Amino acid sequence: MAERRLSELCRVLADHGFAAQLDGEDRAVRAVNTLEDAAEGEITFLSNPKYAAAVAQTRASAILVKPGVDVPSRLSALRCADPYAAVAVAIVSIHGYRRHPQWGRSPGAGIHPSARIGARPNIAPGVTIAAEVVIGDNCTLYPGCYVADGAHLGHDCTLYPNVVVYDHCVLGNRVTIHAGSVVGEDGLGYAPLDGKWVKIPQVGRAVLGDDVEIGANCTIDRATLGRTEVGTGTKFGNVVVIGHGTKVGADCMFVGLVGVAGSVTVGRHVTLAGQVGVAGHLAIGDEVSVGAQSGISGDVPDHAKMFGSPAIDAGDAKRALLAMQRLPEWVRRVRELERQVEELREKLGVASG
Amino acid sequence: MAERRLSELCRVLADHGFAAQLDGEDRAVRAVNTLEDAAEGEITFLSNPKYAAAVAQTRASAILVKPGVDVPSRLSALRCADPYAAVAVAIVSIHGYRRHPQWGRSPGAGIHPSARIGARPNIAPGVTIAAEVVIGDNCTLYPGCYVADGAHLGHDCTLYPNVVVYDHCVLGNRVTIHAGSVVGEDGLGYAPLDGKWVKIPQVGRAVLGDDVEIGANCTIDRATLGRTEVGTGTKFGNVVVIGHGTKVGADCMFVGLVGVAGSVTVGRHVTLAGQVGVAGHLAIGDEVSVGAQSGISGDVPDHAKMFGSPAIDAGDAKRALLAMQRLPEWVRRVRELERQVEELREKLGVASG
Amino acid sequence: MAERRLSELCRVLADHGFAAQLDGEDRAVRAVNTLEDAAEGEITFLSNPKYAAAVAQTRASAILVKPGVDVPSRLSALRCADPYAAVAVAIVSIHGYRRHPQWGRSPGAGIHPSARIGARPNIAPGVTIAAEVVIGDNCTLYPGCYVADGAHLGHDCTLYPNVVVYDHCVLGNRVTIHAGSVVGEDGLGYAPLDGKWVKIPQVGRAVLGDDVEIGANCTIDRATLGRTEVGTGTKFGNVVVIGHGTKVGADCMFVGLVGVAGSVTVGRHVTLAGQVGVAGHLAIGDEVSVGAQSGISGDVPDHAKMFGSPAIDAGDAKRALLAMQRLPEWVRRVRELERQVEELREKLGVASG
Repeated sequence: MAERRLSELCRVLADHGFAAQLDGEDRAVRAVNTLEDAAEGEITFLSNPKYAAAVAQTRASAILVKPGVDVPSRLSALRCADPYAAVAVAIVSIHGYRRHPQWGRSPGAGIHPSARIGARPNIAPGVTIAAEVVIGDNCTLYPGCYVADGAHLGHDCTLYPNVVVYDHCVLGNRVTIHAGSVVGEDGLGYAPLDGKWVKIPQVGRAVLGDDVEIGANCTIDRATLGRTEVGTGTKFGNVVVIGHGTKVGADCMFVGLVGVAGSVTVGRHVTLAGQVGVAGHLAIGDEVSVGAQSGISGDVPDHAKMFGSPAIDAGDAKRALLAMQRLPEWVRRVRELERQVEELREKLGVASG
Repeated sequence: MAERRLSELCRVLADHGFAAQLDGEDRAVRAVNTLEDAAEGEITFLSNPKYAAAVAQTRASAILVKPGVDVPSRLSALRCADPYAAVAVAIVSIHGYRRHPQWGRSPGAGIHPSARIGARPNIAPGVTIAAEVVIGDNCTLYPGCYVADGAHLGHDCTLYPNVVVYDHCVLGNRVTIHAGSVVGEDGLGYAPLDGKWVKIPQVGRAVLGDDVEIGANCTIDRATLGRTEVGTGTKFGNVVVIGHGTKVGADCMFVGLVGVAGSVTVGRHVTLAGQVGVAGHLAIGDEVSVGAQSGISGDVPDHAKMFGSPAIDAGDAKRALLAMQRLPEWVRRVRELERQVEELREKLGVASG
Repeated sequence: MAERRLSELCRVLADHGFAAQLDGEDRAVRAVNTLEDAAEGEITFLSNPKYAAAVAQTRASAILVKPGVDVPSRLSALRCADPYAAVAVAIVSIHGYRRHPQWGRSPGAGIHPSARIGARPNIAPGVTIAAEVVIGDNCTLYPGCYVADGAHLGHDCTLYPNVVVYDHCVLGNRVTIHAGSVVGEDGLGYAPLDGKWVKIPQVGRAVLGDDVEIGANCTIDRATLGRTEVGTGTKFGNVVVIGHGTKVGADCMFVGLVGVAGSVTVGRHVTLAGQVGVAGHLAIGDEVSVGAQSGISGDVPDHAKMFGSPAIDAGDAKRALLAMQRLPEWVRRVRELERQVEELREKLGVASG
């Protein structure tokens, strides 16, 4: 954490393309915080007008806010057009990214003699690194991580506690994996034989591109043969489950509890919202977005917005769901029509049925 | 485990407000068990009449049962109005709660010199406690737990194996977290920039109130700024996923595989059944209950019962779902109406369309 | 990995009941791989005709393929009727199953003196085995595993890193559990008391049969009383969540993110696809299959195929879903009928309503 004067913060924002104006005293701030939680000496922000009432109560000393919005005079205001985007810049400037404990190459880590470890290692006690592993420079491995034989990690990777990387899996550079996630476990690869399941050795691997970040307690199957892939720059929330042989493109975002079955191809910059499921062997195009709890059961073209289980075009799905919620009313109206038509038939002497 | 005579158990039940009558020999029992699994010297129970037939086969020596229900004469019966509630009292009395292995302050734990550990610690080998951590009295930490720098645990907490608490997170008193759960990992906090995701440092924390119990392999994001909260007395099942900045009230119960997105406010005594999802930035009132697999996509008032994806009033949802399952029939009836109306139009010489 | 000549592989396939013919040079192959990833000296396969175009590009030296399918002359072909099934045999023959690091009985493992460990143990540093545990012969426990007091493991079990087995749980022979899974944690067992949740000690256990394989980050609750069971030969994908007291039969397959609530009985050879949920206290018959994201809310007879949330007969569900997606059209048609009937009523002088 670094204290910043508001005038300094103005310059940092300008460097990032956010024109900002200081309105009030040029104070030093030592943290960014919410309206509710900020203390004296901290800077807060107002983006969503629904929280405007909380500005009067905040104990913050400064606020990022749009031009023209009223602010109590005891607060210094940094005014800019998009306070929500600017707050990210302020957080990086004041707080920076997490600093890890420094273990060097801990003698309490179990590192196989055949493993090759890059420069400036930060490997905690209780880490196990198996035979023939290659680890790049500047990697941090927290306690309880296990990197199995033949796995490769690039430079600047961070594995939080209890991450497991199975044998021969590959992580690119700047990959971050949160606690408890597993990369490269065997998928559900069994051949049926007389009502039993015979295990097929899973001899492929899982490969994660550069700048991938994986949430906590995710699981990414290795491929039966070849590779399961997570593309460069893709981010997963928590408990995302990826099946064997699935290839996820670059710059995707998968939210919590998403499950993608095996042998799926996902394009680039695809968003899957919470609890979405994707059936096996499908192809999903680029720039697709899928609403929460949807179930993808067929191929999806580029740029599609999907919703529902099974998912269809999101606009159609919302119309169908609205109609469904009004179904009991429509059922009554159909019954009434049947009554009236019967009445008309009688009147006209038309025989029923 | 403590052996209890049935007459003693009667008194214990009475102390808890359950009037019970001993019908048969005053035997000692050493365990509570199911009808199917009980052995001689154990006490079983019958609550659901659908299991009545199993009473004849049980090997138990005693049974908790309603007055008036027939029981083989070889069984002593403890008769009370609510055997299902009474069995909980019997379990506590005879079995008590889990007794943990006793490690004291294990020399095999990695405890940073700046950490402050309370009285009577029970910290296993293979635990890591980082800098500036504060841990209250009587805390049990199983092997593989990691408590990151600046985290605070209250008194009488239990962390089962491989629980991870990220930096600066806070646990109240008597918090129990089952194996593999993670508290305070980074949420999906990224700013979009030219089709890439730029990470925003997540500088808030996660705060769990007193008497919270968290199941296995759950994940509770830290807030981007401020606090993610889990209220006093709230209980989570397994693999519950809570997004950044979400505030869950007191005495809630969330069942397995529930996912709540970020910035949600949940009231007190809310029940979310299995696989429920809640979209971001919503407000859910007090005493709400939501049926399994439902998806909450809008604010929910106090006392609402919700169901469906997207969730609506549970009664309406059930009617709509029933109607939906009969849709193919309604489609046939509409087609038949169209045919009949066309027939009538022709009869009357009305032009079509 | 063992290199195999194609003529040898022919014989191995024949031994498994797959008649195969060598068409081309009798080369040695050292690995099985996908069309896309195979290198020289490797054998690939073509089963799904949609990948036929990739055969021209593969760098493999041999291919498993149906009789009559065209293949470039540089590739040796092993022709057989079912290349997809045959490839499993080829993988076992050439690659075999995963070979684990060999730790023996590591002095870095924490093994309680009262534990009984079978012959040829392979117990890594960082494993904890508590009091009165019994472990069979030939068991492999990776680092970070915790086996609590009184648990029993059969022969030939494999626990990948960070698996936790709670006290008194039982694993059969040849049980494999992937990284981060938890067996026997407490379920959601609470009694309501004045708006609070009072914990009921969970004194039952979880029992896994022979040849069970559990994916990564699964959770299997112990029973409140008696046993939670997973039947012989049953396989779970990743993040499968099983509630307390549930009994799953033999040879089932549960795919990723499946959740089964407590006190459910599941028959044998039941398939639950991804993200399926099952409500508590239900009985599911034998040979049942349930489609992805379905929610089982009632008992299910043998051999049923179910789909939807709540799930109904899969055929009916698909018809209902199709009808639902066309609902907006049906709504328009009902409105049109109402208009026409009103017109007819006017024509006939019938009073409205």
